[in-house]
Amino acid sequence: MSVTAAQGFEASGVVAGLKSTGKPDVALVVNRGRRAAVAGVFTSNRAKAHPVIWSQQVVADGDARAVVLNSGGANCFTGPFGFQTTHLTAETVAEALDIGAGDVVVCSTGLIGVGDQTFRDKVIAGSQSAVVELSPTGGTAAATAIMTTDTHAKEAVVQGDGWVVGGMAKGAGMLAPGLATMLVVLTTDADVPAAKLHSALRSATHVTFDRLDSDGCMSTNDTVVLLASGESGITPDDDAFTRAVTALCADLAEQLQGDAEGASHDITIEVVGAVSEDEAVEVGRSLARSNLLMAAVFGNDPNWGRVLAAIGTTSAQFDPYDVDVSFNGVRLCAKGAPDRPVTDCDMSPRALRILLDLHAGPATATILTNDLTHDYVHENSAYSS
Amino acid sequence: MSVTAAQGFEASGVVAGLKSTGKPDVALVVNRGRRAAVAGVFTSNRAKAHPVIWSQQVVADGDARAVVLNSGGANCFTGPFGFQTTHLTAETVAEALDIGAGDVVVCSTGLIGVGDQTFRDKVIAGSQSAVVELSPTGGTAAATAIMTTDTHAKEAVVQGDGWVVGGMAKGAGMLAPGLATMLVVLTTDADVPAAKLHSALRSATHVTFDRLDSDGCMSTNDTVVLLASGESGITPDDDAFTRAVTALCADLAEQLQGDAEGASHDITIEVVGAVSEDEAVEVGRSLARSNLLMAAVFGNDPNWGRVLAAIGTTSAQFDPYDVDVSFNGVRLCAKGAPDRPVTDCDMSPRALRILLDLHAGPATATILTNDLTHDYVHENSAYSS
Repeated sequence: MSVTAAQGFEASGVVAGLKSTGKPDVALVVNRGRRAAVAGVFTSNRAKAHPVIWSQQVVADGDARAVVLNSGGANCFTGPFGFQTTHLTAETVAEALDIGAGDVVVCSTGLIGVGDQTFRDKVIAGSQSAVVELSPTGGTAAATAIMTTDTHAKEAVVQGDGWVVGGMAKGAGMLAPGLATMLVVLTTDADVPAAKLHSALRSATHVTFDRLDSDGCMSTNDTVVLLASGESGITPDDDAFTRAVTALCADLAEQLQGDAEGASHDITIEVVGAVSEDEAVEVGRSLARSNLLMAAVFGNDPNWGRVLAAIGTTSAQFDPYDVDVSFNGVRLCAKGAPDRPVTDCDMSPRALRILLDLHAGPATATILTNDLTHDYVHENSAYSS
Repeated sequence: MSVTAAQGFEASGVVAGLKSTGKPDVALVVNRGRRAAVAGVFTSNRAKAHPVIWSQQVVADGDARAVVLNSGGANCFTGPFGFQTTHLTAETVAEALDIGAGDVVVCSTGLIGVGDQTFRDKVIAGSQSAVVELSPTGGTAAATAIMTTDTHAKEAVVQGDGWVVGGMAKGAGMLAPGLATMLVVLTTDADVPAAKLHSALRSATHVTFDRLDSDGCMSTNDTVVLLASGESGITPDDDAFTRAVTALCADLAEQLQGDAEGASHDITIEVVGAVSEDEAVEVGRSLARSNLLMAAVFGNDPNWGRVLAAIGTTSAQFDPYDVDVSFNGVRLCAKGAPDRPVTDCDMSPRALRILLDLHAGPATATILTNDLTHDYVHENSAYSS
């Protein structure tokens, strides 16, 4: 299912030898439909990997037929040789599919600085195999091949009225930073032109993947692409389509959060009473990025003092002495002073809800994050990634 | 020595019962000199503790005679009762010394939200004892009483031409965030008016304490004060005085870095080739705040890819594909591509030097930080602080 739930798509996942475990490591998604519309959003990191630089050009004209993805190397900061590898990968897939290389999106994930001749040879051979293995039921194989430190494949489907949108995601991102990349491929058989795909995707990622912030570290390779085949013959209402894409992205984002490496809590930070949505996001993100607070959560300590210390560093408009803070529904701080005792709060469940009322305005935002644990430090120190 | 190295100062450190260990926990520094000039810099966190709010008012007129400091409670977000406790503490010291309460700086450190009647009673009684114990050789007792999770007292002295400047520091700050506060008291017998004290102190902290960033978490209680007694009768040249204060602050900042809780590496990040000093600081700070990079350093992994991923998130002017990165003198990345193999780099010493050449301009800056370790997570999750 996932990327092959929509009509007109084929996918595959193959073993190219990039992963030392011998597991599948190259995936391919191809749009065989009457339409070949595409939209993409990419990491806002200025340190962009070669496949990101390439793929931004590919999606610029709103047309793409294929997405080829590899793990086992980010192909980032690998010099001109690395950029040529990305180009060659697209050409290889294009030639086998009899399309233009400019219609092939390329995604890579793994260690930065890796992209030598061996890497190139394996990616090219894997891409050729992936074309051979393409199947209208290959969605799960593709979702499996893009896994890195993920413990399970991440797939989701949202049904529209006569059309469908499905997708797969891996990793990582700012979440399971062992491999520090979030790759997402979404497909739909709705008949939607590229401009509308783009606005729906932007709108969806703005309130889903963009609000997932496990460790504040932004990848060089993050890519989310949405392909439309038009095979359902139905053009949905704009709002209905955007809602479906948003629901799909929210589902995948929650799967990413739930599978974040090393995490022992999935934390939902709800900021209410902000002057603007942007300020609500800024405040929520300041909590997600506070090592002190995230370590306290790991220790099941509802340390509201660290919440106030974190938000005090933002430029959002509010009075720190007028803020309420609740952990799992228990208000521990009211108007910047102690309220109920911290012992009233049960921190043992994996899910934690932190509610912050700034009492400054009508805007709200929700940020998803994870705690800072020994396993996080271990995963990110014990081996290079 | 330290705060009593300069003529005209007395100090003490006493047991008030705030620390469960029974160790000294209230310190007092008094200026008995002909001049009572003061300058202070405080946390830029908008979530300010009551003692910070109080002390900012005290130093505003350029006069202060005493600094009273307690551990065992930050007296932050403790409501109006907490602010009254700070006020009462100043009044208690003022009455015993026969000075005005408006000339008493108050500093607190410990858990946010702690400041009940028991806390108040102990701080008040401890402040009275501290006045009784004042001594011209009490500097080390004071430096010991402000220790929290510090493993040793931090003192330093810089000798001028007929005058001296000395100081003590504790903790913490953004460094050893178990108690999340940096408190620094500096004294001099140079005959310097408040305005010049202020400019010297600002200039010194700007390139020392402000460039120490272990975990990116800003305290609600950070305070640095400089008191001048005028007892040497000598008014130094402005530059010489600023240089001495800067050397003193640099010495104390290095002591703070070296004693940071949980750290296994003391990291000096040197950014060169920046367009401006501010941008060099921004770039250096982005490395210090990258959990991915700091965990890699803990694992003795010179992960230059994570350096580039971190700096790519800044707004500083440079081309990521034109940057050189060295670890301990070994250039691992040249112009955004692999240079020498990472195995050439010995990461085993505690001291690590990361040199980053942006090749964009003439400006430089140095940031001091520490790695992200299991002990950091343990210290900040295993107990509330």
